[in-house]
Amino acid sequence: MLYLDYLASTPLLPQVQKDMQKAWEETYANPSSNHTCGLKAAELIDQCKETIADEIGAYPSEIIFTSGATEANNFAIKGLAFALGKTNKHIVTSAIEHKCVLEICSFLETQGFEVTYVKPTADGIVTTEAVAAAIRPDTILVSIMHVNNELGTINPIQEIGELCLEKDIAFHTDAAQSFKKLPIDVLDMNLHAMSVSAHKFGGPKGIGFCFLRDAKTTTVEPLIHGAGQQMGLRGGTVATPLIVGLNSAVQNYQYDEALYKVIKVDLIKQLQSSGTCFKINGINALPNVMNLRFFDSKMVNDILSSQKYCVSQGSACSSKEITPSHVLQAIGLNAPEARNCIRLSFSDESVINLFKDFELKDTYVNAAYTT
Amino acid sequence: MLYLDYLASTPLLPQVQKDMQKAWEETYANPSSNHTCGLKAAELIDQCKETIADEIGAYPSEIIFTSGATEANNFAIKGLAFALGKTNKHIVTSAIEHKCVLEICSFLETQGFEVTYVKPTADGIVTTEAVAAAIRPDTILVSIMHVNNELGTINPIQEIGELCLEKDIAFHTDAAQSFKKLPIDVLDMNLHAMSVSAHKFGGPKGIGFCFLRDAKTTTVEPLIHGAGQQMGLRGGTVATPLIVGLNSAVQNYQYDEALYKVIKVDLIKQLQSSGTCFKINGINALPNVMNLRFFDSKMVNDILSSQKYCVSQGSACSSKEITPSHVLQAIGLNAPEARNCIRLSFSDESVINLFKDFELKDTYVNAAYTT
Ligand SMILES: Cc1ncc(COP(=O)(O)O)c(C=O)c1O
Ligand SMILES: Cc1ncc(COP(=O)(O)O)c(C=O)c1O
Repeated sequence: MLYLDYLASTPLLPQVQKDMQKAWEETYANPSSNHTCGLKAAELIDQCKETIADEIGAYPSEIIFTSGATEANNFAIKGLAFALGKTNKHIVTSAIEHKCVLEICSFLETQGFEVTYVKPTADGIVTTEAVAAAIRPDTILVSIMHVNNELGTINPIQEIGELCLEKDIAFHTDAAQSFKKLPIDVLDMNLHAMSVSAHKFGGPKGIGFCFLRDAKTTTVEPLIHGAGQQMGLRGGTVATPLIVGLNSAVQNYQYDEALYKVIKVDLIKQLQSSGTCFKINGINALPNVMNLRFFDSKMVNDILSSQKYCVSQGSACSSKEITPSHVLQAIGLNAPEARNCIRLSFSDESVINLFKDFELKDTYVNAAYTT
Repeated sequence: MLYLDYLASTPLLPQVQKDMQKAWEETYANPSSNHTCGLKAAELIDQCKETIADEIGAYPSEIIFTSGATEANNFAIKGLAFALGKTNKHIVTSAIEHKCVLEICSFLETQGFEVTYVKPTADGIVTTEAVAAAIRPDTILVSIMHVNNELGTINPIQEIGELCLEKDIAFHTDAAQSFKKLPIDVLDMNLHAMSVSAHKFGGPKGIGFCFLRDAKTTTVEPLIHGAGQQMGLRGGTVATPLIVGLNSAVQNYQYDEALYKVIKVDLIKQLQSSGTCFKINGINALPNVMNLRFFDSKMVNDILSSQKYCVSQGSACSSKEITPSHVLQAIGLNAPEARNCIRLSFSDESVINLFKDFELKDTYVNAAYTT
């Protein structure tokens, strides 16, 4: 079984496993407790917060731990919308955001907000120009993802950040798929908020964080009201061992861009020479991601139902749905075309011979390789 | 260092550690992924859901995994309030709920809801009569905790459930401190919703669940909007290894009531014979909990600042706060009295000689033991 679904989730890094193990054993006190054991846990959390903040050019007090990127998106987008949207209530996002962002926006629409869903290019990019065109005088918040989770395409976050700075609009990015893969500096990018999830880069499931600018003095309403934990912004006993795991992943995850690029080119060559008809969805995607559109639905079904590969069609979250991916539809594919797409995401050279013994290669001719 | 703060958090059970370890290693695929690895993870989650549901007489489809009891309380109370409170907007809770419930209620008050905070007796019990007196024709929701987290006192949840059934009012209980310590049957208790946290009974931090009656057909709005996970009721990649840990704790946690009772009596006798002045706050508390009020603040400070004991004053969450515990104030203690209280919670006989070598025993006379 070849696991080719690293964008859906990654295995724990061995070092993360070790560090978490130690924390589960030793640091079980409640970090809110005012005794030696509790204070030790709180100290450990503070250390983690510091190295994580460092990674993105933020202050430790701007890191709010959450159960993952979905919660971070909910906290940031709803929080900023309600805090800033007392009179003006217009939000700009894109049509290719993660489903949770679209659900959050649908909810906000029921609460009196108006949302513009910027269309991506046919190549799967949300351009600064398109965002600029969507901004109105009553726009209070822009939320555009950094890397798309189906295509691996990279949006011009820095430019969009500059635009938002110019227009004095709050800017949030969902960085679940870019953190630790692309450089991120929250100041350079003019970010007010950013969402991250540990299980996308070798960390544990069930933990992530939200960067929130000036969190200490913000008026953002918590999503999860609690007993004063995390500056009153996120209730719930802070899960020390998971934070240790998150921090360990931040410190130990290696994204081997150069290697992935070589592998990707090799895979594409193999596929071409196998005579298979395919197109690549999106351009300039992360090097460990390929979203391929084939021209034969039987082949796609065979791959998807094979016991040999763990691959997704669209994102994991929507992979059990019957409706085709909203992302693929947004870049102009019709439903049958979208159903013929497969997302491959890999982490190392184990895939180097992926298409060499591609079972189905002989069945297909007329390779049409387009990026 | 003697850890006496099991109500704040518990260490992982060794078996939980083992089971989680295995899941971290093996079950890393996203349970929403539609391939073999993902489906295996989903299957494992379904199995866990079944044994957990079984434990409380619920259907597996009524279990929603959350990051803990705080999130479950937020989901249940806000969810039910907004779903049921279209015209009538009165909620009944108690003055001794966990801080997060009080924060949730404060928030709901800003959203047009009216909340009655039922006073407990001087013994720390929220009586059915007091709840009945608070219920009005426009009451839509009653939320009363099962076991209080500062006193260990047990509320008559079954009776309050019957009252709510009679009056046709939704009923939620925060069972963070009672689950696996007292029998719970959601039907017998007429519960519509219930909150549970794994780290209170030997499970991992960062996971818990909300029981929600008829969750599949409910109109409750999610707290965390997501990509359709958990019947659309709670977004976010479901954290398989944490759920395996939660389930393992459900299956392996042993609450040794008989032993704890013997220990408690012994500790009280030791304390009495040491000549220390004290009172016990609350009656009929869980046998592994004692909330003691001493009459000498210096002694209390010495204990709290000692490197020998990990004990809390009030709950963990509020233990770093300067204001005295809202629970102790609600049972009639003034601020200085509340500051002289210490909560001890233990898990085994390691504490049997706790007061035998109580350093300060010679300093105090006039033992006044009252339950
Ligand atoms: C872009 C993006 N945002 C958000 C999420 C949700 O993250 P989590 O599973 O931590 O809630 C994911 C992955 O599932 C993602 O790819
Ligand atoms: C009664 C009660 N409710 C809720 C909670 C919060 O639980 P969690 O830490 O899982 O959010 C606690 C403990 O912290 C508690 O004792």
